[in-house]
Amino acid sequence: MRISELSAKSGVAIPTIKYYLREGLLHQGQQTAATRAEYDEAHLRRLRLIRAMLEVGRLPVASIKKVIEAVEDESLPVHEMLGTAHYALSPAVEPEPGEDWQIARDQVDRLVADLGWDIAPHAPTRDELAQTLVRMRQLGLPIDLTPYAETARTLVSEVEMDKIPFHGPRDAAVEALVLGTVLYGKAFDALRRMAQESESARRLSP
Amino acid sequence: MRISELSAKSGVAIPTIKYYLREGLLHQGQQTAATRAEYDEAHLRRLRLIRAMLEVGRLPVASIKKVIEAVEDESLPVHEMLGTAHYALSPAVEPEPGEDWQIARDQVDRLVADLGWDIAPHAPTRDELAQTLVRMRQLGLPIDLTPYAETARTLVSEVEMDKIPFHGPRDAAVEALVLGTVLYGKAFDALRRMAQESESARRLSP
Repeated sequence: MRISELSAKSGVAIPTIKYYLREGLLHQGQQTAATRAEYDEAHLRRLRLIRAMLEVGRLPVASIKKVIEAVEDESLPVHEMLGTAHYALSPAVEPEPGEDWQIARDQVDRLVADLGWDIAPHAPTRDELAQTLVRMRQLGLPIDLTPYAETARTLVSEVEMDKIPFHGPRDAAVEALVLGTVLYGKAFDALRRMAQESESARRLSP
Repeated sequence: MRISELSAKSGVAIPTIKYYLREGLLHQGQQTAATRAEYDEAHLRRLRLIRAMLEVGRLPVASIKKVIEAVEDESLPVHEMLGTAHYALSPAVEPEPGEDWQIARDQVDRLVADLGWDIAPHAPTRDELAQTLVRMRQLGLPIDLTPYAETARTLVSEVEMDKIPFHGPRDAAVEALVLGTVLYGKAFDALRRMAQESESARRLSP
């Protein structure tokens, strides 16, 4: 298809497509004349992926570039490729100086080990969770995350992972991961607050 | 105790305490001399609540005022008081014009009815969830929220609600709700992404 059709089908404006081509986020089309190139389904899939990362994941272009490098590096196993996208979605958390941080971080590492989860030592989620634990400890909240972890694991293994097309095109798997992580995460968060309202009504209504 | 001790015990600076007094967020102490007042445990609890809403809930002062009015209005049932805090924590979502919005909003209302949940018709979480459903539909994601809702309900009824001291001081119940909603929500979000990494490793590793 021509660039105009690619634009119509993807909903991405032509100047934006040209920007992605210049930045190397979108691979070049097949040149058919000096000023004319042909695009195909792979380009459409890539544009869907870029939109997912940009509009739903709210990732900066530099992070999107890194994820796309992982998608294009066919020698990289699918799990590593998905990890690159996944880590890009995690907020960057700086370890804080002091004992509170070390206690919290040790607690996270022990939780992961106790659960038998397979999480990379450098996964940014470890520091992200440690930061929340530091706040909880400072505020005197009880810190027993095991029921939360068990709930998350059941949800992920019984519901979420089946939605990722691991064995299709690499772009599609990453797109499903990004959309699923962000949008179902938002949905769960709203549903949790709804469940709190309903349970509070059940317990407190006359 | 004097204001200096209140400041030391709460970790809130004296000028900030004076600002809360002027704004009516903190009730006046017992006047013991022209320039001297006595404060007590209720003031400490109130300062803890304000900090929770400000620093963890990230609520603007106008919203904090509304919640505190609900805390101070003893004629308001506990469930309504907690609802005021809860709704203040929900992002404000404007209904979008168009058919997509109506379809999504109907879907939310049907889900709530099917689950038998007790949610106010004007609860902001209904619009919040509808907004996420609109995005999902536009992106072609499967929309079956039932497993997410069931998971949320189990988590809330078996784990979360027991942490709210419904029958103690009103400040303490609202504080526990705000901290629990925000911090355990963050923790769950990180744990869910950890579970995704672990499950992806399990399924894809050689």
